[in-house]
Amino acid sequence: MNYVFSDNISSVRPSAIREILKMVAANPSIISLSTGSPSSEAIPVDAIHEISEKIFQERGIESLQYSVTEGYMPLRETTKQRLHDVFGIDTENNDVIITTGGQQGLFMTPLVLVNRGDTVLVESPSFVSGIIAAKSVGANVVGIEMDEEGIRLDLLEQAIKEQKNVKLLYLIPTFQNPRGSTMSLQRRRDVYELCRKNGIMILEDNPYGELRFRGEDIPTIKSMDKEGIVIYNGSYSKVLSAGMRIGFICAPKPVIQKLIIAKQGGDCHTNIFFQMVCDEFFRNYDVPAHIEKIRGIYRDKCDFMLSCLDQALDDRVTWTHPDGGLFLWCSLPEGYDSLDFANLAAQKGVAFVPGCSFMVNDSDPCPAFRLNYSTPSKENIEKGIQILADAVREYLK
Amino acid sequence: MNYVFSDNISSVRPSAIREILKMVAANPSIISLSTGSPSSEAIPVDAIHEISEKIFQERGIESLQYSVTEGYMPLRETTKQRLHDVFGIDTENNDVIITTGGQQGLFMTPLVLVNRGDTVLVESPSFVSGIIAAKSVGANVVGIEMDEEGIRLDLLEQAIKEQKNVKLLYLIPTFQNPRGSTMSLQRRRDVYELCRKNGIMILEDNPYGELRFRGEDIPTIKSMDKEGIVIYNGSYSKVLSAGMRIGFICAPKPVIQKLIIAKQGGDCHTNIFFQMVCDEFFRNYDVPAHIEKIRGIYRDKCDFMLSCLDQALDDRVTWTHPDGGLFLWCSLPEGYDSLDFANLAAQKGVAFVPGCSFMVNDSDPCPAFRLNYSTPSKENIEKGIQILADAVREYLK
Repeated sequence: MNYVFSDNISSVRPSAIREILKMVAANPSIISLSTGSPSSEAIPVDAIHEISEKIFQERGIESLQYSVTEGYMPLRETTKQRLHDVFGIDTENNDVIITTGGQQGLFMTPLVLVNRGDTVLVESPSFVSGIIAAKSVGANVVGIEMDEEGIRLDLLEQAIKEQKNVKLLYLIPTFQNPRGSTMSLQRRRDVYELCRKNGIMILEDNPYGELRFRGEDIPTIKSMDKEGIVIYNGSYSKVLSAGMRIGFICAPKPVIQKLIIAKQGGDCHTNIFFQMVCDEFFRNYDVPAHIEKIRGIYRDKCDFMLSCLDQALDDRVTWTHPDGGLFLWCSLPEGYDSLDFANLAAQKGVAFVPGCSFMVNDSDPCPAFRLNYSTPSKENIEKGIQILADAVREYLK
Repeated sequence: MNYVFSDNISSVRPSAIREILKMVAANPSIISLSTGSPSSEAIPVDAIHEISEKIFQERGIESLQYSVTEGYMPLRETTKQRLHDVFGIDTENNDVIITTGGQQGLFMTPLVLVNRGDTVLVESPSFVSGIIAAKSVGANVVGIEMDEEGIRLDLLEQAIKEQKNVKLLYLIPTFQNPRGSTMSLQRRRDVYELCRKNGIMILEDNPYGELRFRGEDIPTIKSMDKEGIVIYNGSYSKVLSAGMRIGFICAPKPVIQKLIIAKQGGDCHTNIFFQMVCDEFFRNYDVPAHIEKIRGIYRDKCDFMLSCLDQALDDRVTWTHPDGGLFLWCSLPEGYDSLDFANLAAQKGVAFVPGCSFMVNDSDPCPAFRLNYSTPSKENIEKGIQILADAVREYLK
């Protein structure tokens, strides 16, 4: 059979980092600073075990039987309450549905809003699976460069004028993946206003929002949303468990209606047992203490990685100083290519994700790369940065 | 904001049975013969509880952390082995990935194969969420009528000639939803041959395949697939638990590669804890005894519903006699509309799904309706069929 695939899926090319990941998988002695996984210490296994035991005893059948597409009603309510209390979001004019991890929201939003060939604007660099999701429904995905305050307003305005049918702007304003940086309050206001004027919906992705370990919270764009143009995408992956695949979307009710249709066709509903686990945890456990613990772990690991970088690397390499989240972003001097560099570093024993992986066109060379500090132990962070520094000396010469 | 949604999602209309379902939800005294849920007695809650306990104790972190898109490798292997042993499928030239329930396979298959406007052919009637999935990626969905042996070959041939870019044929050959009927071996061979000649891929959906409670198994179409044109979609919902959302796809390797890209963008991976549960169950529990138990439950309930129908209904109404699965299909005389009839019956106290819900265009009147025997108790089956018989007498007069 001569297989012919859809134009949409054919537009998504296999990732440039595949070869590096293969090298890492084949050689467990390579230190990985490449994943985006939460720290294992941050997962409250005992609490989840305890809650699970209770569910099996009290609601075994219900937790294993078919459920509703919109999500488990108590968890929808708990989520709404938290969005109001923690993120200042108006939950009167919006509704919440439960998704199969934050990733499903990134996929379903362009599915319901975007026709093939319509434009989705994204930060450049941005989350690779967010880009894949938009491409796989046929969007013309266009990256907009960032500065210290976030996505550049001048370039955003220009893209809105020049690109065809701009329908959606995808943003990770807080502790951005991969840069680890946070959009300023003023930039959030300006971006919101520009989108409002141009009738463009915003997909605000906030998987790391509760992982601030320094400084003051900056209001979500959704909390400014009087016009109903913001679709807020959240996740319980970073504060409870990623493997359970529980996320949520908060959006204006007409948008939610369409998302429910998309989800009915997409996967019927999300694992109901873990929706119950999640709800119970956020209702009846000491969540503030738990979140404070996670923040402490990441503050500690981030600071440790920063001090290792300070000690080991010379000033031809620069990096961001995150106030939260899982990542920092290192830049080689202009003209160097982090894909070549990542291959060299993997051969020497440390793996990370080269910047091209976060570009809309991953064949564009990029001098920067992403480092993760949440997953590795401090011992491996120290060793990994040493190897990185060796590789820098060899590569930059 | 004046919301403009994508053409694809706009083509999916809210279901015609919404009003009936609202009536049922508002009035718990209505007997429901409408769901497609497994019998609660068929879910091995104790085994799942026991396995879960073991996972929490031995692999707590791993079961709650991020995992790979393709699925938990041991479960992929277990699934392959079962596909070979139980369904005679060649697993040398095919690969298996784990999906978020069978529904995700129904969605991703047209996503990777079909451009907007290309044609997907389906049995008429067919599974409503299968139709929604194909429509929501922009397919031109065309229903083909069935006879006693399955989808009609003459009409299928005609549709292949007349419709634009026919890419995919979606079939539920065994214990079809909603009809409960099974495609004959000869028809399977003829349909396969016709598709092979015309370069059309087949999506063989087999969620009920292990629920045969009478007669001999008929080989899957996938087991005849020498050319790699069949994508086999399976599910653990009916033999273990529907709420956990674990399904799988077995397909030629180039197709699997594209499905992995679709799944990465769609939901990253499937709940890993329940992938482990599922794998452990099929490896280390007495699965033949468990399946035999489920078959016994459904044989008993199906036979009971058939005997109630025989006693209560006059011969203006006819129905199918399933050899397995969850459903049977009742037909009023031509010219009557089962949507009207379902409304009347719900008012009298029994709910079921009118045939129009399983049509590609659900505004087409349909004289038939679907009855489910797996979910209700025998007491409720008896009462429900009594009310149904009253409603028939009133409606047909």
